[in-house]
Amino acid sequence: MIGRVNHIAIAVPDLAAAAGRYRDLLGARVSAPQSLPEHGVRVVFVEADNTKVELLEPLGAHSPITGFLDKNPGGGMHHICFEVPDIAMAARQLVEAGARVLGDGKPKIGAHGLPVLFVHPKDFDGTLIELEEVKPDFSPA
Amino acid sequence: MIGRVNHIAIAVPDLAAAAGRYRDLLGARVSAPQSLPEHGVRVVFVEADNTKVELLEPLGAHSPITGFLDKNPGGGMHHICFEVPDIAMAARQLVEAGARVLGDGKPKIGAHGLPVLFVHPKDFDGTLIELEEVKPDFSPA
Repeated sequence: MIGRVNHIAIAVPDLAAAAGRYRDLLGARVSAPQSLPEHGVRVVFVEADNTKVELLEPLGAHSPITGFLDKNPGGGMHHICFEVPDIAMAARQLVEAGARVLGDGKPKIGAHGLPVLFVHPKDFDGTLIELEEVKPDFSPA
Repeated sequence: MIGRVNHIAIAVPDLAAAAGRYRDLLGARVSAPQSLPEHGVRVVFVEADNTKVELLEPLGAHSPITGFLDKNPGGGMHHICFEVPDIAMAARQLVEAGARVLGDGKPKIGAHGLPVLFVHPKDFDGTLIELEEVKPDFSPA
């Protein structure tokens, strides 16, 4: 079912400083920061050759990463996102197996404009897993 | 400097159960477990299309992940490994910039038989970063 790792998300207390470290200490390509107010985060993409790291800073009063940063003030790895071809099927399969899909168990539109869901970290070894529906394409790699 | 994400490592308290979840709930290809006594871990590789997740269980009395699991008994995301073409240069650049390379600051041979180093998570937003020297090849992707 799972295809590519779409991204690894890291919550950081200071987005500009974090992006600077990836750029200057690791020589990574980093995007300009983007604010996603509807998702409560400001994000910088760190481009690796095969996937990306998303650095996330809270935005607004109800950011979904505020609680995480309260517990981990220095930041930390927040979630890993896998691509799936059919998220409705993925949701059904997870729920039938007893895993908790966050929210009402239904996929939502995520930060990339595609349907996503999150699985409770207690059902996956302390790891918050995001699934994002990305239709496979058959163009050459 | 950094190239591919070589792997994302997740420390788990029960390797067989964790591998079963990735296989059965996410439909992932998972390897047979491998014991790496010289690195103090037992590992299962979860193959995504573009990179891999390494599920790590402690092995032996001095496993490097025992402390992490004491703090996070349910498991959690442990580190992210980026490939670099020249690890000696990477180490120099990190140390000159004030980042702490764990151990004596010199690369060691890692679990894949290639030179690796780890950067202190306090110098990278709470994220333990591994760099692994992988010589670029120019074969078609």
